[in-house]
Amino acid sequence: MRGPEHFASGDRSIELEPIGFVRTDAKEIPRHWRVSDVEGTLVIDEKYLEGLKDIESGQRIVVIFNFHRSPEFSSRFLRQTPPHSGEEMGVFSICSPIRPNPIGMSILEVLEVEGATIRVKRLDMLEGTPILDIKPHIEDERDRPGLS
Amino acid sequence: MRGPEHFASGDRSIELEPIGFVRTDAKEIPRHWRVSDVEGTLVIDEKYLEGLKDIESGQRIVVIFNFHRSPEFSSRFLRQTPPHSGEEMGVFSICSPIRPNPIGMSILEVLEVEGATIRVKRLDMLEGTPILDIKPHIEDERDRPGLS
Repeated sequence: MRGPEHFASGDRSIELEPIGFVRTDAKEIPRHWRVSDVEGTLVIDEKYLEGLKDIESGQRIVVIFNFHRSPEFSSRFLRQTPPHSGEEMGVFSICSPIRPNPIGMSILEVLEVEGATIRVKRLDMLEGTPILDIKPHIEDERDRPGLS
Repeated sequence: MRGPEHFASGDRSIELEPIGFVRTDAKEIPRHWRVSDVEGTLVIDEKYLEGLKDIESGQRIVVIFNFHRSPEFSSRFLRQTPPHSGEEMGVFSICSPIRPNPIGMSILEVLEVEGATIRVKRLDMLEGTPILDIKPHIEDERDRPGLS
């Protein structure tokens, strides 16, 4: 099943460039987007302006970003104890910023779009966080009886 | 607002290594995870085994992956017309695999976990797709009146 050739080191690395950066005045460690009310701005590179044309206030968007302040991952982070939990959990079952690939995902609420800057709410990222992608927020309809 | 230093090219690139790969017999272009019933396997590198310990059958997981077969992005892909739509849309409002950073995100259903391989349903990725991260699927409770 497992093709060992796929895990040969270094030959399948993926290089990404930020499409923009987060601007926020929030100084403290942000709370998870589920409970955050922090506002801020996604400043997207103007070369992507046309790609933003269907983003509108009131929408939810999925933002993929880089945990740019995380320490390097090592095997001692395979299990971590999340805040407000006494239980050690596997890294792939928690939202910790310390992960094998330092990628985060948040669902934010669009307040306003002006040119290539998007004012958002529910922010849980630090000032200067590199943004990698924005995707539409798609509801999982099969989870909701009566809607499928 | 916008710090031009952040958009200086090349100095903020992010390099990622796959944590595993997708195995599937599906040959045709997969349908979106919302409507897919395709099964397949996420073959994760065994060095991450401990990090998978809380992934269980029946769960939904968020899988972040690389669109490894996509053509290179250029400005002509800033607007695209999705299949089954007559409307040209901005790339950040659609799920197209042709994006500035070729990152995909799917919500899959766990059927079975055996060692570092995860049998899943709802697959919408191609054979050999590099997997970058697995995250817990977190419901957006504030979307559901009565649950907040």
